[in-house]
Amino acid sequence: MLVFSVTPPKLSTAEDRVKEIAEVTLDRLTALDIDGLILYDIDDESDRRPDRIFPYLPTLDPGRYLTEHLTGWRQPTIIYRCVGKYSEDELTDWMAGAGDQVMSVFVGPSSGGKEVRTTLRRAQELRAEVRPDLPLGAVVIPERADEHLRMLSKQERGASFFVSQVVYHVNEMKNLLSGYFYECRERGATPRTMIFTLSLCGSLRTLEFVRWLGVDVPRWLENSIRHSEDPLAESYRQCVAIARDLIDFCEHLGLPYGFNIESVSIRKAEIEASTDLAAEVAGLLRYRR
Amino acid sequence: MLVFSVTPPKLSTAEDRVKEIAEVTLDRLTALDIDGLILYDIDDESDRRPDRIFPYLPTLDPGRYLTEHLTGWRQPTIIYRCVGKYSEDELTDWMAGAGDQVMSVFVGPSSGGKEVRTTLRRAQELRAEVRPDLPLGAVVIPERADEHLRMLSKQERGASFFVSQVVYHVNEMKNLLSGYFYECRERGATPRTMIFTLSLCGSLRTLEFVRWLGVDVPRWLENSIRHSEDPLAESYRQCVAIARDLIDFCEHLGLPYGFNIESVSIRKAEIEASTDLAAEVAGLLRYRR
Repeated sequence: MLVFSVTPPKLSTAEDRVKEIAEVTLDRLTALDIDGLILYDIDDESDRRPDRIFPYLPTLDPGRYLTEHLTGWRQPTIIYRCVGKYSEDELTDWMAGAGDQVMSVFVGPSSGGKEVRTTLRRAQELRAEVRPDLPLGAVVIPERADEHLRMLSKQERGASFFVSQVVYHVNEMKNLLSGYFYECRERGATPRTMIFTLSLCGSLRTLEFVRWLGVDVPRWLENSIRHSEDPLAESYRQCVAIARDLIDFCEHLGLPYGFNIESVSIRKAEIEASTDLAAEVAGLLRYRR
Repeated sequence: MLVFSVTPPKLSTAEDRVKEIAEVTLDRLTALDIDGLILYDIDDESDRRPDRIFPYLPTLDPGRYLTEHLTGWRQPTIIYRCVGKYSEDELTDWMAGAGDQVMSVFVGPSSGGKEVRTTLRRAQELRAEVRPDLPLGAVVIPERADEHLRMLSKQERGASFFVSQVVYHVNEMKNLLSGYFYECRERGATPRTMIFTLSLCGSLRTLEFVRWLGVDVPRWLENSIRHSEDPLAESYRQCVAIARDLIDFCEHLGLPYGFNIESVSIRKAEIEASTDLAAEVAGLLRYRR
């Protein structure tokens, strides 16, 4: 399974410009051999760490962006929901009206102390009441201790797939996968599909942002990007190597998996590189190396 | 560069049996497409950790084992020397008489408090006085902090190559290589050849021993071996993957490198698997994947 993820345009974007962006995005998506689309929901995470590298700017609601602007998109779409931003009614209404090609990923608050309108647990309950047929995913953060146990709790509460934080540290990801796999085996639980997020890093500033997000970046990988004359090409090479390694690992264990190619940048070179990466990963998946 | 390493027979071995072992070893070595041989020098490391998994048993002197028993071996041999075991005279005499196909690796004491007859520093000085043309290598332990700086000190004191501790944690090794490479660049020093040691692990007991030696084993890799129906095959697969990864990494950076296939076990299946591994790594080196 291969998906491509985009962030909806900023809320302040003029209507005409949103239309243009949506058209370009749609063209790019249809040209790719992908199984689905992820639309992110951005939340202000200044509670977690104040020194955000790129400023937080509210974006269009991913659900509305899909129904109002990406109307030509016929394949499955995974709508992220930072559930704490919404009232119970807002969430319930959206779920009730979501089309049958829609899935969702519920994201909890970025820190424990943050005030929320709906908790992650409550959102999971609402889905079970209102739309139990809405496929639900959960985020996975390999940097957290006991993340494999959290995954099992989440799947008990309805998650049928996982989407990882950006993977730069393949060793940590393999530790998590291994822990999850053997814990599932011990409990007699079926492992759910893990979608690995790959994201190119075209500059040191992006790398700093990735770090800020809490992503563990190995020292050697940071050095490679820092000293490269072409950081984007170096990062591309690393993403492909990570994909190969994870494909091998999952195939060997028999873990279901997929990839999510993230395109967060607005730089043309980076956007093009991410579509190239999606095409290359599609090839890897088709031929399993 | 590909070398194969063996430990000389135990000191208590009967003369006839030593002859037999040497013959079998020689046959095995000549059948392999390798550039050299490493003969280990074993020291009692009970000072470092008392709970040694396999008991310490003194072995034949590696220098004498070469000259007296492996007389048919014509290619370069790297003789390890745990220098603390020897008096200055013993070391000097051996170096003075060492053949021109001989190189050495000096190993320091296994712990700081250990009593030694000759310090590592003094041994390095003696070599510079007596046999400056004797190629000298040094051991590399990626688990140590600032190991890249130690490597640079060692090469300033005469080391022209390095042999690593057994590599199971490729991420840690890449961190070390990256740190070493960029430190060399900053100082205008030429990076020396790093010989990566690969060692198969055919059982959990061997894995415990590897751990006891201080080798960092990733949790997922331990799980893979622990849960495998054929730990030796699983370990073989991992060693090949580590070799590929390190070849890619060194080729990309332009770091000179080689491999050392260690054969420490006396089990027939493990010995055969290590010769297979040597042959496979030889192929990887010849065709660079």
